[in-house]
Amino acid sequence: MLNVKNWNHVFKLDPNKPLQEECLTALCESGTDALIIGGTDGVTFDNVFDLLERVQAFNIPCILEVSTMEAIMPGFDSYFIPIVFNSMNKRYIVDIQHQAVKEYGDWINWDQMVVEGYCVLNEQAKVFEAAQCQLPSKEDVVAYAKMAEHMFHLPIFYLEYSGTWGEPELVREVAKQLDQTTLFYGGGIESIEQANLMKKYADVIVVGNIIYKDLQAALRTVEACM
Amino acid sequence: MLNVKNWNHVFKLDPNKPLQEECLTALCESGTDALIIGGTDGVTFDNVFDLLERVQAFNIPCILEVSTMEAIMPGFDSYFIPIVFNSMNKRYIVDIQHQAVKEYGDWINWDQMVVEGYCVLNEQAKVFEAAQCQLPSKEDVVAYAKMAEHMFHLPIFYLEYSGTWGEPELVREVAKQLDQTTLFYGGGIESIEQANLMKKYADVIVVGNIIYKDLQAALRTVEACM
Repeated sequence: MLNVKNWNHVFKLDPNKPLQEECLTALCESGTDALIIGGTDGVTFDNVFDLLERVQAFNIPCILEVSTMEAIMPGFDSYFIPIVFNSMNKRYIVDIQHQAVKEYGDWINWDQMVVEGYCVLNEQAKVFEAAQCQLPSKEDVVAYAKMAEHMFHLPIFYLEYSGTWGEPELVREVAKQLDQTTLFYGGGIESIEQANLMKKYADVIVVGNIIYKDLQAALRTVEACM
Repeated sequence: MLNVKNWNHVFKLDPNKPLQEECLTALCESGTDALIIGGTDGVTFDNVFDLLERVQAFNIPCILEVSTMEAIMPGFDSYFIPIVFNSMNKRYIVDIQHQAVKEYGDWINWDQMVVEGYCVLNEQAKVFEAAQCQLPSKEDVVAYAKMAEHMFHLPIFYLEYSGTWGEPELVREVAKQLDQTTLFYGGGIESIEQANLMKKYADVIVVGNIIYKDLQAALRTVEACM
């Protein structure tokens, strides 16, 4: 079973975006703790399978963040199952997960499943719209964090600013609530300074978009977190 | 921290129903593992407080099953927080709980909080309507049980037939899914035979309504579970 408690940094790869072989090699050999494969748009069985196959050549944990039932496949080291606390629709909190458990429950290796309590905090993000989110107040987010830790005993609480830079103060406030639950921060990290700043509060920094804009900058965020 | 794993039998008292002193004494001294105070209708601060005060004279764990914010008070040994898996409204899955954590989060002693994953299975029950439930299929219930155990690591999964006799086959099927999560069964238990039958599969038998109809019959269900 994967232990996210020891992680500091992960790269998130979007299966819907092309990635040259030498870029993938650099990411896999960067010293990051894991690769998460996941996205909101255009995630298909084929593009997930393609990325999985390519990553398997390297000695790095590879995780599928499940966003669509169509792209679930064996072969990953672990599967992250999001539940979106600030969704207005229970579909994104229990229904999709329930459907998946009903369909695949007998084949699931639960030791590989890791539930992530998400808060999506960027109103402009595709995932904000896709998961029918509403923007929570700071007090809302803090209470969700408490629920993740104490009520649902989730391994991960994930502050997702998805492409934009978040609020370090809120990340700090949330971090104070969490002891057993690991805090992930994702959003807008493009430099060593930004990685350093958020890493002061979050346990794990997720770096995504910058991979596709400036690979060298992305790679530098790894060192910042070690 | 209360350990429900060791329980076999509990009585559930409705604060909205009168209970003579000698009846309460008999229940408290019956050998049952705990008293749960909870109901759907007419639960007020005053009637909950009254019952709590009376029970505190006895040496038996007393738990508040929280159904309304108005009747929350200190003094109980534990607080059961229901989340209703088969509700159609996310209000009964995360929103009320979120509201409570927002309001009282800083004062909550989390060691006293026990989350119950509910499935309400009697369409005629007040709680079915109150929590905007929909009747799940057998496969639905089994999948909810898996979610309770593996995704949310809940201490309790509760099959609630609320006043009517349930399906032993379904209870048996659900019991097979649960290892860490304790299975509660409640509904229509009025005799030793019924208690025996459901206790074969459920870890804990909840006896409620019969208390108010036939106290001696209620008391006999305790022996059946020991």
